[in-house]
Amino acid sequence: MSGIEYRAWAIATCDCTSELSRSLFFQGNGKVGMRAVCPLDKARGHEHGMFMAGCFETLHDSITDMVNLPDLLCMILSDKDPRSMHQSLDFATGVLERTWETDNALYSYERVLSFSDRALLGHRLKVTAKRGFMLEAKDAIDAEVVNLPVNDDQTKINIHTIKLIADVEMKEEGDMVDLRFSTACGTHSLHFSKHLEAGGSKWLEKGESWEIRSVASIDGRKALPCYDDMKRASAKALEAMWEKVFRFDDSDPRMASAIRFNIFCLMQNAPDQDISIGARGLSHGRYKGNYFWDAEIFMLPAYLKIMPEAARHILMFRCMSLDKAMENAAAMNLEGARYPWMCSTQAIEQCESWDTGSCEIHVTADVAWALDAYVKETGDLEFERSCAARVYKETARYWVSRFSYDKVSDCYQMLFVKGPDEYCGVTCNNTYTTMMAKHNIKLALDAARRGLVSLKPGEMARMKDILDKARIPYSAALGTYLEDDTYEKLEDFDLSGAKKDGSALYHRICFDRLQRLKVIKQPDVILLYILLPELFTEKQAQSAWLEYEKRTSHDSTLSWGMHAVAAFKLGRRKEGMDYLRKALFLDLENLMGNTASEGLHVGACGAAIQGLLQLL
Amino acid sequence: MSGIEYRAWAIATCDCTSELSRSLFFQGNGKVGMRAVCPLDKARGHEHGMFMAGCFETLHDSITDMVNLPDLLCMILSDKDPRSMHQSLDFATGVLERTWETDNALYSYERVLSFSDRALLGHRLKVTAKRGFMLEAKDAIDAEVVNLPVNDDQTKINIHTIKLIADVEMKEEGDMVDLRFSTACGTHSLHFSKHLEAGGSKWLEKGESWEIRSVASIDGRKALPCYDDMKRASAKALEAMWEKVFRFDDSDPRMASAIRFNIFCLMQNAPDQDISIGARGLSHGRYKGNYFWDAEIFMLPAYLKIMPEAARHILMFRCMSLDKAMENAAAMNLEGARYPWMCSTQAIEQCESWDTGSCEIHVTADVAWALDAYVKETGDLEFERSCAARVYKETARYWVSRFSYDKVSDCYQMLFVKGPDEYCGVTCNNTYTTMMAKHNIKLALDAARRGLVSLKPGEMARMKDILDKARIPYSAALGTYLEDDTYEKLEDFDLSGAKKDGSALYHRICFDRLQRLKVIKQPDVILLYILLPELFTEKQAQSAWLEYEKRTSHDSTLSWGMHAVAAFKLGRRKEGMDYLRKALFLDLENLMGNTASEGLHVGACGAAIQGLLQLL
Repeated sequence: MSGIEYRAWAIATCDCTSELSRSLFFQGNGKVGMRAVCPLDKARGHEHGMFMAGCFETLHDSITDMVNLPDLLCMILSDKDPRSMHQSLDFATGVLERTWETDNALYSYERVLSFSDRALLGHRLKVTAKRGFMLEAKDAIDAEVVNLPVNDDQTKINIHTIKLIADVEMKEEGDMVDLRFSTACGTHSLHFSKHLEAGGSKWLEKGESWEIRSVASIDGRKALPCYDDMKRASAKALEAMWEKVFRFDDSDPRMASAIRFNIFCLMQNAPDQDISIGARGLSHGRYKGNYFWDAEIFMLPAYLKIMPEAARHILMFRCMSLDKAMENAAAMNLEGARYPWMCSTQAIEQCESWDTGSCEIHVTADVAWALDAYVKETGDLEFERSCAARVYKETARYWVSRFSYDKVSDCYQMLFVKGPDEYCGVTCNNTYTTMMAKHNIKLALDAARRGLVSLKPGEMARMKDILDKARIPYSAALGTYLEDDTYEKLEDFDLSGAKKDGSALYHRICFDRLQRLKVIKQPDVILLYILLPELFTEKQAQSAWLEYEKRTSHDSTLSWGMHAVAAFKLGRRKEGMDYLRKALFLDLENLMGNTASEGLHVGACGAAIQGLLQLL
Repeated sequence: MSGIEYRAWAIATCDCTSELSRSLFFQGNGKVGMRAVCPLDKARGHEHGMFMAGCFETLHDSITDMVNLPDLLCMILSDKDPRSMHQSLDFATGVLERTWETDNALYSYERVLSFSDRALLGHRLKVTAKRGFMLEAKDAIDAEVVNLPVNDDQTKINIHTIKLIADVEMKEEGDMVDLRFSTACGTHSLHFSKHLEAGGSKWLEKGESWEIRSVASIDGRKALPCYDDMKRASAKALEAMWEKVFRFDDSDPRMASAIRFNIFCLMQNAPDQDISIGARGLSHGRYKGNYFWDAEIFMLPAYLKIMPEAARHILMFRCMSLDKAMENAAAMNLEGARYPWMCSTQAIEQCESWDTGSCEIHVTADVAWALDAYVKETGDLEFERSCAARVYKETARYWVSRFSYDKVSDCYQMLFVKGPDEYCGVTCNNTYTTMMAKHNIKLALDAARRGLVSLKPGEMARMKDILDKARIPYSAALGTYLEDDTYEKLEDFDLSGAKKDGSALYHRICFDRLQRLKVIKQPDVILLYILLPELFTEKQAQSAWLEYEKRTSHDSTLSWGMHAVAAFKLGRRKEGMDYLRKALFLDLENLMGNTASEGLHVGACGAAIQGLLQLL
């Protein structure tokens, strides 16, 4: 399908210049990310795809975009028309390698983003002449880049680019190039530097070789290592990272390759500072680079098993943006702290469509769940005391104000929400949301009981009352929780018929229609079972699987991996393996059809690894 | 408050140049509308406010705006710094008159938009010198106009103007000025002409008078009448219009003035072609000039009693755009015809916020109700047979596909809708929507029974099943219909406390919070009682009043007038009079605070007149 060759520690392909390959062969080190756009590739201003983690700039009002940065690894060659292209990405060394030939010469190009000193990146081109010819090779920085912001309403395609870098000053002095610029509104002042080891024009005799190497930095430093040293140090750091990863059965090289690809994707996008990870990491500007619950629920449990320090960064970002979340709650006439549905580093709501941004409120409880999961996994009680506890308290206060007390039924209603299943309309009492909110409240009460935070007696009484009386839709007939108050009223739907061509339903059925059909986009009650299994008896969990799995369209990339987790937990090994395979090859085989145009699905990688972890 | 002097057949003021006066002294003849911007008034490019009914142009995608047209009645005077301004608008003659003086002279200016030949408009300035001075007076057309489109999300103020007229060619030949231009995307090619009776520079001796008059057309004709003839013919036509209006008690000049102001507003905005009326008529570009259900439910019942031909135009527009409504339904994976929530002449959905555009679906049943109301009032069976019946049929088909059959309860659910009360969230089984949909289906079944349309037997059976089994929320405790499935779950709210300062709640409470409070923006169940009183026993209607009226914030301008109607119908004369007075003075006294910035509330005028009609 995708033309990928699978090796135990690498992927390779002859299809080097497609958008799909630019996504799959993406490189990142958590600080910098680059789509696989190499010398001679044609790329428009918004397609270079070099990003820095946390580098966002304002588009309008408080809406930001992840900045497309000047391409530090640009190389302009006079000998064009490449053929016999081939490229590989090595998960052990982190090296992207591409080879091609022309009438004149054989070329071998490689590129590294350092895992040992994450401000560094470099590349090397080796040319071997097949006949005498003059080659001009300019190792450069391309600052002619623009952004192409993705509309929040993703049904409309944006065609308007916007320049988000300004005041560009480029200086060449000897073998150093220095680039200073700022982002458009002055949010970031940046200084890049690049040390050229060769370049210019050269006559090559037949059989003669020429190597052009350079190392660049995003922190403007003058003293840069040589390319080979940087590459060696990076590989060593990466080796140490792989050593910390759990062992798994790698007897099947195709599966081993896919597993390592997914883990490597998580490694490449793991921040080394207290920020979160966008839905597409650093691999694409989709969703304007914004952070979602993807980080806490889909990526974080996988990071806990491969690089817990990344999990901590993600959570520290939420702890540090608690004040913003409190402002957000106040702006919505609520108490406590309400995390935004999507946000960049400024932690301000970026979702411009009301029904989503205002209704998918479960993200706040997801953050609290993840904090607790981290503490449980690491035993880091100091983190809980000094950081997490205050979040528990303020988010629990939010939930108290968000529940509506219903006198008639003496219960607490969770009105006008959307759960994880985005094919459901705005509805009431989504079980996932309410149960996660209750879990959030329990964490606050528990923290208060242990003296980590203080709560007023009235507050505590109200919280306990909500734990007792929050309405949870349940079906005796189904023997398990209902997704929400509306679920049983929805129209029957022939899912297998409608999914015959494999494409997502939302391409053919408008949301207004989808919301009235008994069809699920991604796990909702089943996800609740994964996160809080203690809420389910074995029988209720099996019943949930039987009711919901067959109605799930998996039109979200976050679906397959979590279904693998649930299937394995429920002893459904065959179904689990089927889901796990789909999850592992979701990007590699472009199974959702959007890896080319949107980049890597980092949350889906995390979900796939969560599925795999069930097998260990 | 607003500084208005009320005369039986006119309003007057000394506050001539405020935005409020520009709205209140607006003139229109249904074809052309002009805000009251007169010589020496300062107006930016988007503030001239000359509009033509049906003249819309594309902004982007399929979104249009009502075009700000070149100002045909522009007059530039050298003698500035006016003082002692006063102006009046005469409802009998349609003449706007303004007087002022300067150190040099006394001025008297008047303006007419013809009610006898609606493509004509003209003005006259009379100057009487207080001392000798040189006056330059240029009677001109100002084509330096732009649009300032109103964001669909009205919480964000737009500051970006856009030029929607292009290819402007102005020619002066003798005493004729000729202006040809097109709208930006070429949707309209327009030809204006203007005949000048005087102008230029003139030395005036003390006591000497000078009159400058001109008549202009929007159809480019060469032969234009003189100003005085045009004014006389217009007044005569208007006299005939007033003669057709019902009689009412005009013993109180203040009330008489307000009543005539509201009727005159309806006259000034009544189309003379098959189009509808924007929420602000031709008095302002608010809502981009779009048509809403305001026309069918709030204006139309009033037009039926004063100018039924306008009611017919409004309805013919809906009949003629049935095909577009069918395309709209198909695009939403539904059958039949679905009218857009807001639209311009192209009849394409203009609402860009999903929850409103997709959920306020009652507009389709409102159109059917209005068609039936017209037929009942006029007895025009030919209109019903040739135009309305097909609308009944296709809209009924839409409703059949929009209801969701619920096997568990053996009923039809109306899922994910918003009723007239816009403070309610997206909810299920809004009683107004379902009852109006049932009424719509009944109209189709009745038309089929009488052979006006054909329906398949299966369709008819399904329609009858829906009439039997559509879920209608009802409270035995309240003794009347519930607004929707969510109403009883909402949180109690101290409305009188919150409304102390009189301003609309949405200025202080965000919608996410408002939707969970038991507070109503505008009549919902009470409106249903007005439109379909046969659904209510006297007791149920009184109970509805007792439950809902006290919870209504009247934060919609459509609220007071309809509460007057309901109060009078229920024998609550004192409450009815209170509501009627507020409704009649809503614009005149700027009681909602937005008549200045948004123009005249034509729907509210219709509602006020509906209230008044209950007294006759």
